[in-house]
Amino acid sequence: VNERSTSLIKLGILGGGQLGRMMIREAMRYPIETYVLDPDPQAPCAHLCDRFVCGNFADYNTVLQFGRQVDVLTIEIEHVNVEALKQLSNEGIKVFPQAEVIALIQDKGLQKEFYAQHQIPTSPYLLIDDKETLRNIDESRFPAFLKMRKMGYDGKGVMAIQSAKDWEKAFDVAMVLEKTVDMETELAVIVAVAHDGEIRSFPPVDMAFNDQANLVEFLYVPSRLPDHVLDEAIAIAERVAKALGIVGLLAVEMFLDKSGNLLVNEIAPRAHNSGHHTFEACETSQFEQLLRAVCGLPLGSTKLKTPAVMVNLLGEAGYQGEAAYSGIQEVMRMDGVYLHLYGKKITKPYRKMGHATITNESLDSAMEMAKQVKNTFKIIAK
Amino acid sequence: VNERSTSLIKLGILGGGQLGRMMIREAMRYPIETYVLDPDPQAPCAHLCDRFVCGNFADYNTVLQFGRQVDVLTIEIEHVNVEALKQLSNEGIKVFPQAEVIALIQDKGLQKEFYAQHQIPTSPYLLIDDKETLRNIDESRFPAFLKMRKMGYDGKGVMAIQSAKDWEKAFDVAMVLEKTVDMETELAVIVAVAHDGEIRSFPPVDMAFNDQANLVEFLYVPSRLPDHVLDEAIAIAERVAKALGIVGLLAVEMFLDKSGNLLVNEIAPRAHNSGHHTFEACETSQFEQLLRAVCGLPLGSTKLKTPAVMVNLLGEAGYQGEAAYSGIQEVMRMDGVYLHLYGKKITKPYRKMGHATITNESLDSAMEMAKQVKNTFKIIAK
Repeated sequence: VNERSTSLIKLGILGGGQLGRMMIREAMRYPIETYVLDPDPQAPCAHLCDRFVCGNFADYNTVLQFGRQVDVLTIEIEHVNVEALKQLSNEGIKVFPQAEVIALIQDKGLQKEFYAQHQIPTSPYLLIDDKETLRNIDESRFPAFLKMRKMGYDGKGVMAIQSAKDWEKAFDVAMVLEKTVDMETELAVIVAVAHDGEIRSFPPVDMAFNDQANLVEFLYVPSRLPDHVLDEAIAIAERVAKALGIVGLLAVEMFLDKSGNLLVNEIAPRAHNSGHHTFEACETSQFEQLLRAVCGLPLGSTKLKTPAVMVNLLGEAGYQGEAAYSGIQEVMRMDGVYLHLYGKKITKPYRKMGHATITNESLDSAMEMAKQVKNTFKIIAK
Repeated sequence: VNERSTSLIKLGILGGGQLGRMMIREAMRYPIETYVLDPDPQAPCAHLCDRFVCGNFADYNTVLQFGRQVDVLTIEIEHVNVEALKQLSNEGIKVFPQAEVIALIQDKGLQKEFYAQHQIPTSPYLLIDDKETLRNIDESRFPAFLKMRKMGYDGKGVMAIQSAKDWEKAFDVAMVLEKTVDMETELAVIVAVAHDGEIRSFPPVDMAFNDQANLVEFLYVPSRLPDHVLDEAIAIAERVAKALGIVGLLAVEMFLDKSGNLLVNEIAPRAHNSGHHTFEACETSQFEQLLRAVCGLPLGSTKLKTPAVMVNLLGEAGYQGEAAYSGIQEVMRMDGVYLHLYGKKITKPYRKMGHATITNESLDSAMEMAKQVKNTFKIIAK
């Protein structure tokens, strides 16, 4: 990209879900043509991009052929073919985040070792090859969470385990055993890194989880935690981004334990659920920031414009089939409520169907409204 | 649309230009599938809608067949086949704005007569059948503007005329001769009317024109005019909307003359250039408001969130061909500047290629920044 003049940039996105859809919403404002690869012909991006290719982003040849059509290639999901990305990068395609970063993030075991190596605080862990091995682990390592090293996603491939005696219930693949943190709360920082190394973080958010779905239920910004904790959270997130050498966006989810320690929990090298509020609450959205970072454009301001609460809108339990939106009119009458539905035709229990951002001068009022949105708006089947 | 529960709405849009593109940007957030009809296979909407139909929106059968596929049909340009819209409406398709409203607006002569009939203030005018007729018009009617009654657009079909002696230079079609207003400034109000008659206006804006291109160059909000003028402007705009009986969006452009009178200049029954700042400056954008109005959903808040200046980004004089964006990086480094480029592949002199909204707590600072954007950012050919 030339500083003096920019012409059309062809941007490829591996994955065509809601994150890609929201990226396209921002790409529309720029000289960026979007190419999307997804196996689902009904993916949220399928009809909203310049070119949609129906294919498997985990397949080497599919990714290679797809990537050769574009100038810049990025992701909205981690489970992509890394070997193809390496090859494309060798051929001169700009691949951000880089293949090596994605490879690390595909393996929760390597991630943990990376934290240890770079003195990044994280919960105590052990790498376990299979469930037999679990039998002999010392009880001091429990209670814990077991996470499959690969292919975990949105709470899938994660289970709580109380004792080595429960070994038979475990996954039978390579796993990480993570000691359960005596958690005060959970927070997240999204960091962007540009081609030239410029780095900017969004204001930290704190989160409440839905235990049943193991998904973020409410997100609050500005975080209600003390400034020194937030400053430390930003410092940790930026250290992770620098240690990775990532170009693009990195979401860093952290625990704050009851002793006041911040521990890195999960990281994602892409747009993230913990940044959805940025459309309305920040001067630049996370989706625009990602485009700027990967396309070699300058980063935008991450300044908070207003307090906000984000609520995920999940498919209602007990309903499966063609989606219908109950209570949408009531919610659309509430000032400061911004609905973002993802265009998924089929709902199922706890499926992420959309989110709402509630902005208000008072975070407390926004929280009240968010609860009202949650209670009023239901995604059911027709 | 059922109050209790809403499922997917198929929305047809006649016209696939930048206004449609920005409507899609908001439709993406709702259970709204977009169908677009435009004769240009490279139209800004072509790749960003659920279904694109390449065809002529002025052709009866094309519009009829297109409209039969959707639940709700709207426009982003007035020059559409009204007879087909009447037929579709008879068949039960929800057509908003209504065919009768569009018919009135397609004819600037009928518009003027409508204002007279409803005591809506407008500049003195005469309807003229052809240029021969002009010869005998009394000189007290000049200086004036001549406007073609039909098919005028963005300054096309409009010319200044100083005297009846200049009759030979005139168009030779049915025209409106409008006495030139001794103008203080120009302002605009966008009104939305929902199915149930709920009516909401956006805060008035005032505007500076580019005389060469006859297009809005800068738009300011909040308007710098006194409150009583703004209140009157809103009252006039809402009277026009009610008199028309429109459901949808109505942009009302007005002159303020040197004696303090407001005079309706042009009206448009759709999203409008004078509302582009609403993406960032208002709680609901004009594009979302239009979707809400035509789809039978409740209207959103039009509250101003921040002062803003909007600047149209036109193709640089002297350049024609594949668009390139000079100075884009400098402009993207300015906090509070929101670029919206329209994805038009080809630039030509004064073609509307995009706009930028500049938000700032101080309108004066936003104005300074807008000038800087205008001076820095140029759309040239590759």
